Amino acid sequence: MKLYDYFRSSAAYRVRIALNLKGVASERASVHLRRGAQRAEDYLAMNPQGLVPALVTDSGDVLTQSLAIIEWLEESYPQPPLLPRDAPGRARVRALSLAIACDIHPLNNLRVLKYLSTELGLPQAERDTWYMHWIREGLPALEALAKPGAGRFLFGDQPTIADVCLVPQLYNARRYNVSLDDYPTLLRADENANKLDAFAAAHPDRQEQPQ
Amino acid sequence: MKLYDYFRSSAAYRVRIALNLKGVASERASVHLRRGAQRAEDYLAMNPQGLVPALVTDSGDVLTQSLAIIEWLEESYPQPPLLPRDAPGRARVRALSLAIACDIHPLNNLRVLKYLSTELGLPQAERDTWYMHWIREGLPALEALAKPGAGRFLFGDQPTIADVCLVPQLYNARRYNVSLDDYPTLLRADENANKLDAFAAAHPDRQEQPQ
Repeated sequence: MKLYDYFRSSAAYRVRIALNLKGVASERASVHLRRGAQRAEDYLAMNPQGLVPALVTDSGDVLTQSLAIIEWLEESYPQPPLLPRDAPGRARVRALSLAIACDIHPLNNLRVLKYLSTELGLPQAERDTWYMHWIREGLPALEALAKPGAGRFLFGDQPTIADVCLVPQLYNARRYNVSLDDYPTLLRADENANKLDAFAAAHPDRQEQPQ
Repeated sequence: MKLYDYFRSSAAYRVRIALNLKGVASERASVHLRRGAQRAEDYLAMNPQGLVPALVTDSGDVLTQSLAIIEWLEESYPQPPLLPRDAPGRARVRALSLAIACDIHPLNNLRVLKYLSTELGLPQAERDTWYMHWIREGLPALEALAKPGAGRFLFGDQPTIADVCLVPQLYNARRYNVSLDDYPTLLRADENANKLDAFAAAHPDRQEQPQ
């Protein structure tokens, strides 16, 4: 199995965590996003979206989109489960994950920040305001959504896909110095997750930095 | 079951289609997004994200996030299936869905267009350019991703969650007069989907318009 990765991509970070939680080994190839390597012809032939991550399975299937890859891992390597057993619990975990993956993260993607800069001519300060705005709008809602079902983790006492999405998002929030004091549920899950080697080993600082 | 809906919300449109495909009846409540009804206290108490859709199940569970709701429907009402049986096929369908739900739609959401207007002071023409940009960036990639596995629908010959996401996205593209000529695979799936009553009956024009 081979993961096309970028150390700071939140979506790739999620898949690194999930692979670690499942104990699935994979070869890694770093796609240098800041240098545009995702736009190289051979990469686009594999993943026409020109995004990371992409996972090439042992059967040669090319899987894209972090949450689709993680659902595939869940189906292919059921232990330990990253979704609860019951349908309402699964819906809750998926909703928490999507509240991050659809409603916060896409707005702060590199390609969007580039558009703000090159097409709209926004200076760094206004791009930072944009970035923080979507985190500050998203996290209070996430805290409220998570609170009733949270335990040591975002849903219950075992890590789920929701924590897999949370940890990279809070990493981003901290990079922009967004205060997290108002989100005790999120902080507790994040802290417990990062105590696990599966999460800690997936941290951007512990990846090979592209040259 | 009760769906909190808005006729023109793409995410709600997806859930309307999925409910119809599954043959699941539901009461409807329209949440007037343009008037800010999603920010009303009682709505936020139910869905802290202040977004539509939300689905209240017969057991009283409140489900949010369109794709989480649709996965719940798939698990709770397996017939007809909206995902293939094999894990790589399921990953492919989910990736197509997420390429729309994460990489196109969130950028063109009402709350984002509002930010462009109120916070950045962008005139209508530049907001339209923004809107069309993300569609024009997303659809060629989607066409290329879908092409190898497409049949009458976006994946194979039966409608899947990918078509459920595609049809509302192409509805949006047409509202902005984005040319779709270069996407024959998408157009074929869209055309075949809209021939089905489940899709046709979910169209915004066929919903109760909020007063």
